[in-house]
Order: sequence, then C-alpha cells, then structure tokens
Amino acid sequence: MRYELFYWPTIPGRGEFVRLALEEAGADYIDVARLEGRGLGVPAMQALMAAGRGDFAPFAPPFLRAGRLVVAQTANILAYLGPRLGLAPAAEAGRLWAHQLQLTIMDMVTEAHDTHHPIAGALYYHEQKPQALLRAAHFRGTRIPKFLDYFEGILAHKTSGRAWMAGNALTYVDLSMYQLLAGLNYAFPNTMARRARQHPRLIALCARVAARPNTAAYLASRRRLPFNEHGIFRRYPELDP
Amino acid sequence: MRYELFYWPTIPGRGEFVRLALEEAGADYIDVARLEGRGLGVPAMQALMAAGRGDFAPFAPPFLRAGRLVVAQTANILAYLGPRLGLAPAAEAGRLWAHQLQLTIMDMVTEAHDTHHPIAGALYYHEQKPQALLRAAHFRGTRIPKFLDYFEGILAHKTSGRAWMAGNALTYVDLSMYQLLAGLNYAFPNTMARRARQHPRLIALCARVAARPNTAAYLASRRRLPFNEHGIFRRYPELDP
Repeated sequence: MRYELFYWPTIPGRGEFVRLALEEAGADYIDVARLEGRGLGVPAMQALMAAGRGDFAPFAPPFLRAGRLVVAQTANILAYLGPRLGLAPAAEAGRLWAHQLQLTIMDMVTEAHDTHHPIAGALYYHEQKPQALLRAAHFRGTRIPKFLDYFEGILAHKTSGRAWMAGNALTYVDLSMYQLLAGLNYAFPNTMARRARQHPRLIALCARVAARPNTAAYLASRRRLPFNEHGIFRRYPELDP
Repeated sequence: MRYELFYWPTIPGRGEFVRLALEEAGADYIDVARLEGRGLGVPAMQALMAAGRGDFAPFAPPFLRAGRLVVAQTANILAYLGPRLGLAPAAEAGRLWAHQLQLTIMDMVTEAHDTHHPIAGALYYHEQKPQALLRAAHFRGTRIPKFLDYFEGILAHKTSGRAWMAGNALTYVDLSMYQLLAGLNYAFPNTMARRARQHPRLIALCARVAARPNTAAYLASRRRLPFNEHGIFRRYPELDP
C-alpha cells in the first residue's frame, strides 16, 4: 500500500503529525502537494477536496488516501494508520487511550494556533495583534501548564512502560508529543525554558523519539519542513516575553 | 453493561453529544455528576479525574466509564459507543468517515465556544466582550457558512442514504448534528434564520432526529438540560445582531 498524504506544502502544520508516523514506520508514501507534475501539487489536493461531497470528502487538510479510502482529521488519520504501521497499542482499550491522548494534543495545537489568531483565521496576525497579546499571555500562564502538567503526570504515574505515553512501546502519540513540544519550544522558547524543570519526563521522551533511527534520519532530511511564521507554531517575540 | 457518564451537571455542553446517543439507543446509563449520594455528584467526577494518572485519566469531562474502562474526549466516546449502541456504520471505512464528521462537528463546537471566550476560558465573558464581538462577527460571517455549507454538501451529494449524514442509517453523527444546530439556533438565532434557506437538508435531518421516539421522549424530559449562559452555546444578543 502506497499512502498518499495531502497537506499544505510550505508549513509543518497538522500534516507533520501524520508525516512523523509515516517516516518512523518507514512507510511507502508520497507527499502529494509537495510534488510537481500531473495529478500532483496543491491543485490535486484542492481537486480532491472539491470533488464528491458525501464520498469521504475532507473538510480540510491533512488527509490521507489509501487506495479507495480517504481519511481526514489528523487524529483520525493516526487512529487509522497506527495499527497498520505498528504504532498503536494492540488492544481496544489501549487504542482508545492513545486516541484520547492524541485528541488532547490536537486540542492544545488548536489553542497554540489561536494565540496568534484569536479573532479570525481569515485575518493576518498584525490585524489581531492586541488580542493575540492577551490570548498568548493566558496560554503561557494557564494553558501550557495545564496541558503539560497533565501529559507529564501521565508519564509520572504509569506503573509500567514509563518510556512511552501509551502502553509499553512507542506509538504515534509519542511522535505527536515530540512535535507538540518542538512547536512549543519554537513558538514560546522563553516560557518553555522557564518551565523545563516541570516536565522532565516529556523532555526525555522527546529525546528518545528524536534518537529513533528512522525519525532521526527524517529530522535531518530536507523532507522535514522548518517551523515558520505561516504555520501553527509561530515565533513572535512579543507573544513570549 | 451500565454506562456511567461524567459531565458537569448544569450545562448541556459536550456531555450532551454523548447523552443523545445513550438516550436514542435506550442504553442503561447513569449521569453520575447529576445524582446525589455516596460515590455520586461532582465530587465523584473530580475524584476520578484526580486519581491514577497514566491509567486512562481524563483531561476533562465528558468521560464515560464502562466497567474498568474510562474513555474521554467526546468524539472518542462516541466512536467507542457507536458500534455498541447500533449507532455507527458497520464497516471500518464508514466508521472512519463518521468519526471524521464528528471531529469536524467538535471543531465547530470549539469555535462556537470561543466566540464568547476568545481570550481565555479562565476569564468571564464581560472581561473579553470587545474581543468577543470581533470573533463572533467572523464566526457568523465566515465560519458558520464554511462549516454548514460543508455539512449540507455532504447530504446533497450523497448517492444513497440521503436521510442521514453517514451511511444509510441513523448514526451518532446525526444526533450530534442535531445538537450542533440546536446550539447554533440558540446562540445565533438571527444568523441561523437568515441562513436557513442555505441548509434545508440539515434542517430536515434535525427534524427527523427530533421525531425519533426515544429522542423525542428524551427532549421532552427533565433529563434534557436547557441551553444557558454558562455553557458552550450562549445567547448574548450583541454577538448576533
């Protein structure tokens, strides 16, 4: 099975959570919107979104095509891919738990995005900067602690398999946790540095993820898109004093 | 199996999406935080959240206990319950599709909430009212059309089973769509009235849902909590001129 990933080609964004799973597993996939040619590129992605409502049409990227199937919503894609890539717990209870954690990660991703877009995604950052300053302050002071304390607590209270978020082996949740922390470190370096002692287990987890051979090779490759000020995690110094 | 639902007792909120599925299916369940007595009420809910991190501890309500299993995140709970309550498509492709739709509904729910809380959930509405006016204007003008046009398009382009969102029979997605439209009608009555002709199929879907005997009986019961100005969908006239 060759998987086809569809996502905006110039930002890591939500697509990166899927890409990390495909890369760690060494899966056969193409990154459609980043390729040029007939049936490729952003036009191919947009054509699939416009076509065939009622037939698994995505609301937004990322989405994955696997044969005749089209799966959208980041956490849903990972719930689908996880068992196929050997990146999910085996039992149903473990899969539900992994998915719950993933959905909570995605909730934090949305809140991180809204720090620079608290009024509307359709407006530029500079058009909502006063509101962004307010929202970012609450995100730094209240939401980062709440989410990261929760995730750190998961690791701290595990009775076995403390190396990984869900179960006793690496899952897509660990890869997503890596990306979440990487994004937060990029966007809020001062806040994250001040809080580093509060989440040592998450930091160690991310180091373990980054050291996985496939993931390490991917992170060093040109396939890994850098964070930038068009994506979800943006470094605006005024939002992280 | 007696299911135990945990959610804040005074608002419909996200818990209502789960409640609708349990009620339509005639499931055996208790609404723990709304009951009084030993091991019941909000303290019981909070105790479960505080206990045993790493052991399926929820990040936030709603969550469902089913025997030894605790499942959190609204869409995850519905993905778990759907097949057990006869409210999900039978095949994996259909279930992924239903879950994608549910996650997109939940995204819209979050955005509806943020119209009155664009800066921080920890602040009162009156402390972020100027920003709420801005965010609500974009929600009404851009996001309501984008989401509802998408959902309406799903129904319009189906080749079979046009009565329901996913597949050929009622699923939890239809129940959630009912709740989403009910919430939007409550919070944004003027906007929704002006746009009603743009989504006739969604309106008809909601009427079919509300006419289901179990759901109709539930909606007329005292178990159905009214919308109010403490929940996700709030009627602040200035946000819907």
